[in-house]
Amino acid sequence: MSLTNATPLEVAKAAQVGSRRLAVLSTDERNAALTAIHKALAEGKDEVLAANKQDLEDANKAAAGGTLSQSLVKRLDLGKTGKYEDMLQGILDVRDLEDPINKTTARTLLDDNLILSRVTCPIGVLLIIFEARPEVIANISALAIKSGNAAILKGGRESSHSFAAIATIISRALSTTAVPSDCLQLVQTRDAIADLLKLDTYIDLCIPRGGNELVRYVKTTASIPVLGHADGICSTYLCADYPAGKAVRILVDAKASYPAGCNALEQLLVDEAALTTSLPTVAKALLAYGVSLRCDAASLSALKGALDPASAAILQEATEEDYRTEFLDLVLAIKTVKSLDEAIAHINAHSSHHTDAILTLDPQAAKTFLAAIDSSSVYWNTSTRMADGQRYGFGTEVGISTNKIHSRGPVGLEGLTIYKWTIVGDAQVSADYGAGGKKWKHEVLLDEGVARDEDEREVLRKFRAAKKA
Amino acid sequence: MSLTNATPLEVAKAAQVGSRRLAVLSTDERNAALTAIHKALAEGKDEVLAANKQDLEDANKAAAGGTLSQSLVKRLDLGKTGKYEDMLQGILDVRDLEDPINKTTARTLLDDNLILSRVTCPIGVLLIIFEARPEVIANISALAIKSGNAAILKGGRESSHSFAAIATIISRALSTTAVPSDCLQLVQTRDAIADLLKLDTYIDLCIPRGGNELVRYVKTTASIPVLGHADGICSTYLCADYPAGKAVRILVDAKASYPAGCNALEQLLVDEAALTTSLPTVAKALLAYGVSLRCDAASLSALKGALDPASAAILQEATEEDYRTEFLDLVLAIKTVKSLDEAIAHINAHSSHHTDAILTLDPQAAKTFLAAIDSSSVYWNTSTRMADGQRYGFGTEVGISTNKIHSRGPVGLEGLTIYKWTIVGDAQVSADYGAGGKKWKHEVLLDEGVARDEDEREVLRKFRAAKKA
Repeated sequence: MSLTNATPLEVAKAAQVGSRRLAVLSTDERNAALTAIHKALAEGKDEVLAANKQDLEDANKAAAGGTLSQSLVKRLDLGKTGKYEDMLQGILDVRDLEDPINKTTARTLLDDNLILSRVTCPIGVLLIIFEARPEVIANISALAIKSGNAAILKGGRESSHSFAAIATIISRALSTTAVPSDCLQLVQTRDAIADLLKLDTYIDLCIPRGGNELVRYVKTTASIPVLGHADGICSTYLCADYPAGKAVRILVDAKASYPAGCNALEQLLVDEAALTTSLPTVAKALLAYGVSLRCDAASLSALKGALDPASAAILQEATEEDYRTEFLDLVLAIKTVKSLDEAIAHINAHSSHHTDAILTLDPQAAKTFLAAIDSSSVYWNTSTRMADGQRYGFGTEVGISTNKIHSRGPVGLEGLTIYKWTIVGDAQVSADYGAGGKKWKHEVLLDEGVARDEDEREVLRKFRAAKKA
Repeated sequence: MSLTNATPLEVAKAAQVGSRRLAVLSTDERNAALTAIHKALAEGKDEVLAANKQDLEDANKAAAGGTLSQSLVKRLDLGKTGKYEDMLQGILDVRDLEDPINKTTARTLLDDNLILSRVTCPIGVLLIIFEARPEVIANISALAIKSGNAAILKGGRESSHSFAAIATIISRALSTTAVPSDCLQLVQTRDAIADLLKLDTYIDLCIPRGGNELVRYVKTTASIPVLGHADGICSTYLCADYPAGKAVRILVDAKASYPAGCNALEQLLVDEAALTTSLPTVAKALLAYGVSLRCDAASLSALKGALDPASAAILQEATEEDYRTEFLDLVLAIKTVKSLDEAIAHINAHSSHHTDAILTLDPQAAKTFLAAIDSSSVYWNTSTRMADGQRYGFGTEVGISTNKIHSRGPVGLEGLTIYKWTIVGDAQVSADYGAGGKKWKHEVLLDEGVARDEDEREVLRKFRAAKKA
């Protein structure tokens, strides 16, 4: 990794050149680089923590002056028990995932000795803009190298000493490996972001990791494709048939387990038949967790009738704006709906297409909801907080995408790849085929080894059982 | 399909509402709509051809006045033998392809009774901007309905009468089906494109089909993601070991079979060891097809020594600009390279990342080339003209993408889909898992029926053979 003060154009050009060399390295060469980075960062812990202490001192001064929040100061601290070790372990976890590139995902016999393949490959050069958390740099470096992508990193200035120390160590480690140093560059130049976002000739994808102000700025400024999400306005629709006890478990988790998360619940839609049955139980539980409830007229009236006077007194009236707001706090907007269709229409019009859920015992209603909701993750009878790369089994994620193209939902290694089409032939040419000429065979080869029906699955199961015995 | 003079905002909003209804229709309902469109267009042939005649008369006048090219006039003509029938057959071909949506492409057991699925779904609303060819409207309408996407269509004004006639007929046909009419809208408003390209709240993807001026305008103007390619600068690298006869077949097909195609060859890289062996044979064949050869110094000198004086006299000197030009004509730039690495570096720096090929008998060189070239299609021993959705077995294509994200290469039905993640649970919540809590199972379910090794493939083959016998 180079720590660079070069111009954005020089940075981007160098990254593109490096990316082409990185793209053809073997799995072992890329994994060896991750091993080397892990070792170097383990040995350099004191060096990094000394730099981190300097960031913390600056941040504490800023916090005392009121220009920085205490929660941000906390996120800066790499010395917290286990945090540095988690960062180190994360590098090995990524190393040990399956290689996402050079996988053949489709294969068609076009004609004899003429084979079309779809092969996964790196996207090229990523631009990753992130806010203060210093451990992110190690995590992203690991994901980039593993997926064969060069990465230009630009971090928040609050972590600049920590970033510089980590980058210097990673740079030293990479110089002993096959990965070109320019494949990872930490940009230190001030105000480089606007220029970098225009370099679509050299940079293939931008992933902003930070608050929605940053994401909005990136989306409106970039000529490069941007992967990510600005808001996380997640909804859950509570049907009248769903047991109150389970609803409480799910909704408390969704709203109160980490209200600052993008997958936290911001809106509860309640079937009008549930207003006097499960809603009061749910509301009591949420109030006990300190959640402020902003209710529409129907739910407000129902809850005022059902709750004790002290609880009823702290209920608030919802405004239309509340149904378009990501609170990122212990606040929940509640809205009454008359039907499944109304719930679906409201969510499609108000959600940020991140994650939405239905709680019901009716499989038909659930099926309709799962099909009709236009969001990257849609759940039946569980918490919106499940939307997370680690929970999905991706090992780790670079972020969550609400885009409608490429990667949607939590984005792991697979989301950092694209594919190329290859054809291997023996001098067949296009003019041989078509009207009056040869016929294409178009025989799908890749599913040769896939069971085509239940009989074939049974054959495989029996063979495996016999082998095991 | 509505033929609309509404404002861009009204058009886009209506399309989004329609898209949500279309997204949940069954395969049968979408296929039935294609059958209805096919029937109506077959019955309305005279009506369409009468309108097309009007476009042709206007175009012929413009051509006589020199404001329109003769080749464009030809492309307008729907009355040419077989063209209308091909358009009709295309609708049925798309109808009979496998349904690209509602397919589960990944499935993971997160925990008991907690299943994560990745399910394909439509992207939403497509904006498709295309130039004169009137049959494209039927083709694109079929692809959009089949893939469950609403489409806003804006066609070139030269075909306006034909487009209006086709749109009126499609509109009539759709009114008898489950597909909402607003799912297909042909925009007639002048100057609507710039406004439509900014409506990223309602439109999910833009596909420009036309010359590179149109594509460049769309790419620089749109706040919507754009799928497509501006240039098709395709190269082939001729190695010294490759037989001249096969090289001639491939290179004549690549350059001369359809020079106006985006997959036509524009640059030939020649290994210096081939300058006096196969290159003269190749050059003679290309000259016989009327191809102008623009040569670098080394190839020029080699060919001047090898060709007859008349042929040698018409060779041209290449400029640096020739290696960055899409000729779309019977012109070929030739460049000598000293090594595979030089060929790869030149192509990665000069190609438009569309399609590039290597001609060699050396598997190691081919493997390196296939891995190192950063283009959407990369071939070994065949013609760049193979890059085409129909040839790839996609049935049809909406275009060819040189994007590095989402769809790359020829884009068929699959390229018009995205996926959503669903989780079906029973009140498990995120806080149950992690440090000190339950462990994720992360058991991959979808590959249960996939042969895991050669033994298992053999078991499947034997079972199939026995069943067949």
